[in-house]
Amino acid sequence: MLIAVDATGGDYAPREIVKGAIEAVSEYPIDIALVGNKAVLEMLLRRSTRKSNITIVPADQVIRDGEEPIQAVQNKPDSSVVVGINLVKDGTADGFVSAGSTGATVVASFLNLSLVKGIERLAVCAVFDANQPQPTFLIDVGVNANCRPIFLMQFAQMANILAHQVFGLDSPRVALLNIGEEEIKGNNLAKESYQLLKKTDLNFVGNIEGYDIFRGKADVIVTDGFTGNILVKTIEGYSEIIQNLLELQEASKLDRQLTGAALAQYVQMTSFIKKLDYKEYGGASLLGVNGNIVIAHGRSRAKAIKSAIYLAYLAAKQRVVEAIQNGQYAASV
Amino acid sequence: MLIAVDATGGDYAPREIVKGAIEAVSEYPIDIALVGNKAVLEMLLRRSTRKSNITIVPADQVIRDGEEPIQAVQNKPDSSVVVGINLVKDGTADGFVSAGSTGATVVASFLNLSLVKGIERLAVCAVFDANQPQPTFLIDVGVNANCRPIFLMQFAQMANILAHQVFGLDSPRVALLNIGEEEIKGNNLAKESYQLLKKTDLNFVGNIEGYDIFRGKADVIVTDGFTGNILVKTIEGYSEIIQNLLELQEASKLDRQLTGAALAQYVQMTSFIKKLDYKEYGGASLLGVNGNIVIAHGRSRAKAIKSAIYLAYLAAKQRVVEAIQNGQYAASV
Repeated sequence: MLIAVDATGGDYAPREIVKGAIEAVSEYPIDIALVGNKAVLEMLLRRSTRKSNITIVPADQVIRDGEEPIQAVQNKPDSSVVVGINLVKDGTADGFVSAGSTGATVVASFLNLSLVKGIERLAVCAVFDANQPQPTFLIDVGVNANCRPIFLMQFAQMANILAHQVFGLDSPRVALLNIGEEEIKGNNLAKESYQLLKKTDLNFVGNIEGYDIFRGKADVIVTDGFTGNILVKTIEGYSEIIQNLLELQEASKLDRQLTGAALAQYVQMTSFIKKLDYKEYGGASLLGVNGNIVIAHGRSRAKAIKSAIYLAYLAAKQRVVEAIQNGQYAASV
Repeated sequence: MLIAVDATGGDYAPREIVKGAIEAVSEYPIDIALVGNKAVLEMLLRRSTRKSNITIVPADQVIRDGEEPIQAVQNKPDSSVVVGINLVKDGTADGFVSAGSTGATVVASFLNLSLVKGIERLAVCAVFDANQPQPTFLIDVGVNANCRPIFLMQFAQMANILAHQVFGLDSPRVALLNIGEEEIKGNNLAKESYQLLKKTDLNFVGNIEGYDIFRGKADVIVTDGFTGNILVKTIEGYSEIIQNLLELQEASKLDRQLTGAALAQYVQMTSFIKKLDYKEYGGASLLGVNGNIVIAHGRSRAKAIKSAIYLAYLAAKQRVVEAIQNGQYAASV
């Protein structure tokens, strides 16, 4: 199995990306195609003992974070994102991971891989750990600011397949993010989506509220891309503050002031915050296109890249895209 | 100045409400009218040395949390919420604080106090401390699931008055909660609201994203009641987890394992989380009706009730309702 990895995108590219790729081929039964500047990548790989599992695919253009995605994708056919996604398109690679511009990855996937038949919109599904025994799936975290009820129903169906195929959840509990538990609560979109969701054969458990995300009430949480994006970024901002406070504790730990139960607690809290960050822990799957695409955080270091590669590997192994392609959508409800 | 307080609403009513009221009259230059069961309140006040500042207003009906608000308010004219709001309506009280059903308080305020002329919708404005030197105002956190751009513009104008009058912010930075900084970002509601907001005489600083809530980028944050409600409840859920982890640390502190810098850190983190909870720290103002109404958390204990009473006192003293009544809205843009 070959996973393509964007070696150019992300704040710590290419060094941390290459490091993550080397760790990934050491741990998982995969080969990796690093997409980026050939000379730089050859230099970074020179000392690696695992280079037999890593190939380099040259791509010399770079799409920067601030660029308008549609123009960037169209004007830079030799960018790492476009080249990487084309490796998936032509069947050379079984998946593609990028920590570069999310907008560019979404646009290039849409243009070059096209939507799965019957699917109205692609969406980003975050996989994170909300202090539960198994991961939680939140869809959509940012592609579709304006949604119709049918989009949300399809998001739920796709994320349900991901949760089932990749993480072996038998009958994932699917919930609609809303402002009250009752069926009649919410804005028009939520109310209408509820009606569609309850008619599917999903294990739809109804509405959940903001705090329920942390209370293990659902495996798959569905919302529009506006609410979902604000939600994950709010969590990110909160984590930053707690992280800053913990870093001072880290200093005091070094002073040997943090011992026993307090130290255990510190470790537990740090671990919780890290796992909550879907991009650090699991990554985010782009669902609804004919290809296996994983989005990693722009701030990804080696470990986060390895996690994202693992998600791409699992999705390929468990044939998530094929399962989504074989789904029944829309008119069937 | 007289502030009416709902002694019946909330998980710890009436005992913690009465305690909070006694603390409030000790600290602030106010009198309090406790609204609830006369016999019970007389008993609870018996030993207080501050009872000369506290009167009891009988109200024998109770609106429970699960009740449908409109029916409850109409069928229970002798409930503490309805009686308390009528004290504001007839000018007896300068404000009303309730930790009871938010829905009932909103409905009773709307029906009995009516909307300020020119205002399209009332809204709940949360006042909280996001680790900044001055408080942050988030509107709407839950009344209006479906909004039009003009609502958001008016929410901004009302919260701007609250921030200016009550907390002395000279020219509050008003921002629109969105999924990107650029003017063209967001769902249709956000895009259109942006256009309205930039034409007002507010100090509109543009869009902010979820993480910016914690980065001190704005004083007044405007959003629709669906997104706002999910946002505050997500923060609440996150805080619950951190709080649980800290409580274990508290135990270890008792073991004298937490000392020096680590202890200071623990105190700082606990304080941050408490202040972030707007209902514990500041409360939430119901803006847009002809009366000064403050909503406290259902789980309020004495200290939170005292905070909410303080907010009601400040709003009355600074004549927030009058300032909102004197505002220019809608057609003026």
